[in-house]
Amino acid sequence: MLQELFTPSVQHALDLVGIFVFAISGALLAVRKNFDVFGIAVLAEVTALGGGLLRDLIIGAVPPAAFTDLGYFLTPFVASALVFFLHPHVERIQVGVNVFDAAGLGLFCVTGTVKAYEYGLGLTASAALGLATAVGGGVLRDVLANEVPSLLRWDRDLYAVPAMVGATMIVLCIRFDALSGITSGLAVVTAFVLRLLAMRFHWRAPRAWNRRSEAAEES
Amino acid sequence: MLQELFTPSVQHALDLVGIFVFAISGALLAVRKNFDVFGIAVLAEVTALGGGLLRDLIIGAVPPAAFTDLGYFLTPFVASALVFFLHPHVERIQVGVNVFDAAGLGLFCVTGTVKAYEYGLGLTASAALGLATAVGGGVLRDVLANEVPSLLRWDRDLYAVPAMVGATMIVLCIRFDALSGITSGLAVVTAFVLRLLAMRFHWRAPRAWNRRSEAAEES
Amino acid sequence: MLQELFTPSVQHALDLVGIFVFAISGALLAVRKNFDVFGIAVLAEVTALGGGLLRDLIIGAVPPAAFTDLGYFLTPFVASALVFFLHPHVERIQVGVNVFDAAGLGLFCVTGTVKAYEYGLGLTASAALGLATAVGGGVLRDVLANEVPSLLRWDRDLYAVPAMVGATMIVLCIRFDALSGITSGLAVVTAFVLRLLAMRFHWRAPRAWNRRSEAAEES
Repeated sequence: MLQELFTPSVQHALDLVGIFVFAISGALLAVRKNFDVFGIAVLAEVTALGGGLLRDLIIGAVPPAAFTDLGYFLTPFVASALVFFLHPHVERIQVGVNVFDAAGLGLFCVTGTVKAYEYGLGLTASAALGLATAVGGGVLRDVLANEVPSLLRWDRDLYAVPAMVGATMIVLCIRFDALSGITSGLAVVTAFVLRLLAMRFHWRAPRAWNRRSEAAEES
Repeated sequence: MLQELFTPSVQHALDLVGIFVFAISGALLAVRKNFDVFGIAVLAEVTALGGGLLRDLIIGAVPPAAFTDLGYFLTPFVASALVFFLHPHVERIQVGVNVFDAAGLGLFCVTGTVKAYEYGLGLTASAALGLATAVGGGVLRDVLANEVPSLLRWDRDLYAVPAMVGATMIVLCIRFDALSGITSGLAVVTAFVLRLLAMRFHWRAPRAWNRRSEAAEES
Repeated sequence: MLQELFTPSVQHALDLVGIFVFAISGALLAVRKNFDVFGIAVLAEVTALGGGLLRDLIIGAVPPAAFTDLGYFLTPFVASALVFFLHPHVERIQVGVNVFDAAGLGLFCVTGTVKAYEYGLGLTASAALGLATAVGGGVLRDVLANEVPSLLRWDRDLYAVPAMVGATMIVLCIRFDALSGITSGLAVVTAFVLRLLAMRFHWRAPRAWNRRSEAAEES
């Protein structure tokens, strides 16, 4: 039942779009860090496939989809080539990249949650893995680039929360037997729009109490 | 036989205590690094569950316990909330946190070794995985926070050695068929006390020969 | 068929050589980073076994060879002890270490590719995993040492390309049914020699267009 949310070819096309835009974000960071062409390709691959790889290892879906679907594996190379030859233009359309990245976030939190549930995890664990699928690649990207993951930093617009909301909507749909192409599409769109709004209005999460006053001195 | 070391509920309660104190250490580092509330929760989860997750992936126990036991998953959120609202007080009781962390270290090196052995690994490999269970979460915490893992630094009190001793005691007990609730409790206490002594007397491990004189110039 | 490339004992001896030289490189970095003796041993283990561990988790070969073969596990300790007591001499013979490291690179990209294919992965995925086996340990080493992975940096001599060439030769041999001890030995030697030439003539990969002029200002 669960696999029939979207037709397989639509699902696959959406996955490739998500992988592509995540790969763009990895490749752009690699350019900013002054990596060579292989560094660009490696960071694009890791950013695009890392979250799903982590999820597949945890649910025991080996070999992971990243290594069995050639399209998943080759898409980041296309993104790397685009960034390699066109990166000033790609950076200029950073807004566009952010919109696509938000779409990837929405899509991956939903497909990650559904796949984890299909492999027998509980509802809470499925939502957690959906979130990990959506944000894991970006965290690996930042760790490899030797930066503090932007997911964790207080001075970045909300990123995890939209994915959490999307994943939570899916597990609620599963719980109340309401999962369908429409409801899961709705979860994708909700996460997507929340992320766009977070970027537009610079929504941020609070830091620990008593921290704001000290921050100026300490960091 | 091996599962009967402690009654299941005692074992589970001890695990939760270990997870809780490790989560506190992750959340405190997140506050120090100026992360937002989600960064605090993520770092608490990774610190508390990362070592066991790594072990479970390696021994093929998927999905890992971190994703099948809701208590394991939710405990770090409680720790995060405490740190979020009370962190100046939590920092003030840093000594208490260190004592609990030492208890978690002792407990996890023992349970990690036993679980690895139950999954068919050899004695040496089981001890190595017990050590990895005990210290892995802290290493992941430091990597995500973009710091040199305190496990590796020469200017920190011994941390790996107590866990090594505890894990070694367990494999010796297994080897000589003397594993029981009493002997494994003894291993927990030994690792715990060794860590307390290491902190109290600032026991440190040597660096490479010829290194001490150069250190001032180079680092 | 595939397992019979080399006699098992030759294969095992070659693996141990590769593990040993990778461990030396990890231990030397640990000394340079001023880690203590346990940090040296941990970094040696991770560097030597990390790539194969990653591959084994991905192909579902659990428990990974790193934890079932005692020789694999103990070899890095020998390397750590050598570096600990002799590191000024080991550094002086850095050229020798580089040559052995190149040999390890050649060997691991071939054995990694073959093992991935034996576990049922496609040709492209097998080559990718062969590359990951060869370079994964070094990336983990640099991440743990809190440095930008030298694999990704533009100012280092080509490292991934020789391994890519070796892995590609193997999958071509498999594709055209020409895999034998001779052809795979040839792939090892090709990757090995390419890496030596890259070091000798400082072959480097290009960075993104328009990047070279900006680099001076930004990084």
